[in-house]
Amino acid sequence: MSRAHLLAVARGDAEPDLVVTGARVFSVFTREWLEGDVAVAGGRIAGVGSYTGGERIDAAGRHLVPGLIDAHVHIESSKLLPSEFARVVVARGTTTVVCDPHELANVLGAAGAHWLLDASSGLPLRVYVMAPSCVPASALESPRGPLGTEDMASILRRGRALGVAEVMDFPSVIAGDPDVLAKVALHPHVDGHAPGVTGRELDAYAAAGIRSDHEATTWEEALEKRRRGLWVLLREASNARNLLDLLELVRRFGPEHCAFCTDDREPDMLVREGHIDSMCRAAVAAGIAPENVLLMATLHPARCHRLADLGAIAPGFRADLVVLEDLESFRAETVIAGGAVAARDGAALAFDAPAVPAWVRDSIRLAPLGDDALDLGPAAGRVRVIELQAEQLITGAGEAEPAVAGGRVVADPERDLAKLAVVERHHATGRVGVGLVHGFGLRRGAFASTVAHDAHNLVVAGVDDASMRACVERLAELGGGIAVADAGAVRGALALPVAGLLSEAPAEEVVAAMDELTALLREQGVTGSAPFMTLSFLALSVIPELKLTDHGLVDVAAARVVPLAL
Amino acid sequence: MSRAHLLAVARGDAEPDLVVTGARVFSVFTREWLEGDVAVAGGRIAGVGSYTGGERIDAAGRHLVPGLIDAHVHIESSKLLPSEFARVVVARGTTTVVCDPHELANVLGAAGAHWLLDASSGLPLRVYVMAPSCVPASALESPRGPLGTEDMASILRRGRALGVAEVMDFPSVIAGDPDVLAKVALHPHVDGHAPGVTGRELDAYAAAGIRSDHEATTWEEALEKRRRGLWVLLREASNARNLLDLLELVRRFGPEHCAFCTDDREPDMLVREGHIDSMCRAAVAAGIAPENVLLMATLHPARCHRLADLGAIAPGFRADLVVLEDLESFRAETVIAGGAVAARDGAALAFDAPAVPAWVRDSIRLAPLGDDALDLGPAAGRVRVIELQAEQLITGAGEAEPAVAGGRVVADPERDLAKLAVVERHHATGRVGVGLVHGFGLRRGAFASTVAHDAHNLVVAGVDDASMRACVERLAELGGGIAVADAGAVRGALALPVAGLLSEAPAEEVVAAMDELTALLREQGVTGSAPFMTLSFLALSVIPELKLTDHGLVDVAAARVVPLAL
Repeated sequence: MSRAHLLAVARGDAEPDLVVTGARVFSVFTREWLEGDVAVAGGRIAGVGSYTGGERIDAAGRHLVPGLIDAHVHIESSKLLPSEFARVVVARGTTTVVCDPHELANVLGAAGAHWLLDASSGLPLRVYVMAPSCVPASALESPRGPLGTEDMASILRRGRALGVAEVMDFPSVIAGDPDVLAKVALHPHVDGHAPGVTGRELDAYAAAGIRSDHEATTWEEALEKRRRGLWVLLREASNARNLLDLLELVRRFGPEHCAFCTDDREPDMLVREGHIDSMCRAAVAAGIAPENVLLMATLHPARCHRLADLGAIAPGFRADLVVLEDLESFRAETVIAGGAVAARDGAALAFDAPAVPAWVRDSIRLAPLGDDALDLGPAAGRVRVIELQAEQLITGAGEAEPAVAGGRVVADPERDLAKLAVVERHHATGRVGVGLVHGFGLRRGAFASTVAHDAHNLVVAGVDDASMRACVERLAELGGGIAVADAGAVRGALALPVAGLLSEAPAEEVVAAMDELTALLREQGVTGSAPFMTLSFLALSVIPELKLTDHGLVDVAAARVVPLAL
Repeated sequence: MSRAHLLAVARGDAEPDLVVTGARVFSVFTREWLEGDVAVAGGRIAGVGSYTGGERIDAAGRHLVPGLIDAHVHIESSKLLPSEFARVVVARGTTTVVCDPHELANVLGAAGAHWLLDASSGLPLRVYVMAPSCVPASALESPRGPLGTEDMASILRRGRALGVAEVMDFPSVIAGDPDVLAKVALHPHVDGHAPGVTGRELDAYAAAGIRSDHEATTWEEALEKRRRGLWVLLREASNARNLLDLLELVRRFGPEHCAFCTDDREPDMLVREGHIDSMCRAAVAAGIAPENVLLMATLHPARCHRLADLGAIAPGFRADLVVLEDLESFRAETVIAGGAVAARDGAALAFDAPAVPAWVRDSIRLAPLGDDALDLGPAAGRVRVIELQAEQLITGAGEAEPAVAGGRVVADPERDLAKLAVVERHHATGRVGVGLVHGFGLRRGAFASTVAHDAHNLVVAGVDDASMRACVERLAELGGGIAVADAGAVRGALALPVAGLLSEAPAEEVVAAMDELTALLREQGVTGSAPFMTLSFLALSVIPELKLTDHGLVDVAAARVVPLAL
């Protein structure tokens, strides 16, 4: 459909494709609610006025707002294919996401990001990609391979690539490391990630040219970032619920330079709470004016990412529209994406999803576990223990007098000390790191996951080696996933065959399967709200204090491998 | 200076080049006034804090704000070389302008825009260029040649080219004319120009992808444009003083999506009133909060033009800074451009200006005026008359019973009817359009200009042919300019040898010369505030109702040439 046709519709010389009638129409440019029908032609908005012809969508008494935009998300955290993720979030009113495919890139290299772009082509959801900047997350992790500037450049040449993804290695940025600065310099638009960074270190981080951050956990930290010209991306993730704390910034300084993002949401959170709509709901409930809330969910994320045609209901903008029942529930009655109805009454309409190529299903390369692969070594006094913290990604660096059997250190379920192992799974090297973790509550058996940030090797926790081995073997058979075993036998598993990260099943099935596995774990003593997510972050070598990778226990502050024995 | 050095300064590991101490520092991101010193290194801002070393600029008790930005200006209207324009406006706190060089492009083609880029290289003023989209302004004008899409593309390849300049031919845009839409499609960033366009026509104009407008004259018109996603560029030009009327939009809807621009300012306005600083002064005097005023003069024009490193005092942004004495006078005590002091106490520091190449001085190609070149033709009843309107660019289409001498229509100073001629001056074709104009008050002699929008042919008004011819001959000798003659002899002239548009003299001399010429005109009876500017717009064939080009009288609404005789 040509631009000339759009203009003809705008003038009234041609019929629109579609007209949304009778709604109160939100103007992001004036914060007004305008009266008028909204005409759509060729996927774009022709105007707000009165129009003849076209498909009519009656929205009398409702509110019409631009499609919601997620300013920063890792789709992989949903454990869903991009098409399935789209089905879930489009039904909630989200029409655009800006994602960092760094989980896929850890497993599949640049090809993982390219596949995400392919797999999100033609969806009712606009999926933009930032080129991952921190693969591996540290030198102590083993992804399939490092992602270099040439790999990033290959991603940046794609049509839906917008810039450089969150530069998580903030110490190297601040220190002026030339390799990291070379990645930052690849594109003028660079997302940030600077948890707890303030003062002069934040000055240096911002001076590098980085212009957003989604890691602030207090409004004061967010204010420091906003003063320095960073877009403040208010986050509400499964494992990082920061929204309510950050809204004080909006109360005091207005919604400018603020936008919403979800970062990482487990499938159950998406299905049960929603997506950006859940943030709108929570923010309005917390007393923020709906108009300001909507700005942070529409125009502002578009502006942050320099998406000049998105985030507004105005002539020439993309026709991404949501009919909201009201401004409290933010329930999406009808969702229009690219000028076509994409969802009605909370359910996405059917669409053709790209086929999944075989090669993304074939990512697990595990060497057989040797007899002593899970051995914690000879007893020799006190040992280091990874201490879980309730509902947090950070862990403590604890210590304990270990249980001993046959002269070797072993797990001790009576004291909630489980064995933890990370098994390299990209190149079948047979490299295994082992350690002890305290706090899962595991009394019997084992559980495992090939989702294990950021390198996504296989992580398994257990109190008997036979169950741990059973989990590893099952995940090898499944081509990745999560599993629970007891007494040396697998009790249940969810296959995540795509890169070992994603299911090919519908979201509801994935949620049901995870619920079931979590229930099995409860029977084996495990507590905590999201044990598989907790497990998956124990391998992330850049979050304090003590973690485990295939190289062994990592003292994060010191950035080095340390032995089990103290 | 490398980015790594900037980061070292930010961290405190290296000394800044320059530190502005003690000022209250404006944060465009929070509207706060921060306490702290501002460090600069390598032309960029390192941070706001406390720093050791470097050149110190004491700004205690003053306000430090980002360098002011003009969102839309034709530098040529200043009649000054770009370097001289820079000297004048930098002293006033302007550090960036986004200009449309369409006057130069009418005279010199694409080369005119290229020269402007060359001539503004290395100045303390950042000069960005939009590629002129409407040369000629209409088919009834004769510039040196039309500027096609290839010419525009050649300009857009330059480093400081930002997009497509004001698309003045709004009727063709609205009608969906493919040639005009092809120009709009040359770049994603397109400035607009849609005087009085509202409703569905404005929908069509905006739907073309145009995202700014500087032609609104009422706040209601500006509101319509803002709702449609057009940046509202509030204008205060010599001949279009719209600021105070438009500020009501800011009062009612806030400063978002609004920015300041000057469009066209005569040299006397620049020297006597100032530049963007004069708009700040006027807006604060009109009751707008200084913080909102500053947003419209700094961050907002930068955002409008997608200049991500300008318009803020924050790490990594360009170090363009103004120390203001106060927030009422907006007097610039010190101006820092690109990290170096560029002006102090209202005077720019010396800098090297690029040399002016000979070819831009050689633009006048006039055929000798034939004996009957200025003849208005045989008397044949009533005739059309261009009716001046006080302080406006629009003219009325009047009529009169003409004076007759020797059977030919002639001027009639008793009834304030002057003869008007436009002489083609690019290709020496000898083509001359003639007509009558009412309202100058000219009682004797003639006056002329090679500044004659937009094609910049030679325009001359007079009540005796000998004086008109004397003006034409003098301007041919000078290579362009403005002149006043009486009794067949030139009384005074100002050479504008660069493209027939610009002087090479300092601003103060140009102003003095124009004052003198205006005084001469007063002696010859001329009234009105800016007679040379009024004269220069009588040839602009796209401003209603009756105009004159080298093709003859133009009925603007009908877009055709009409005879003198009714």
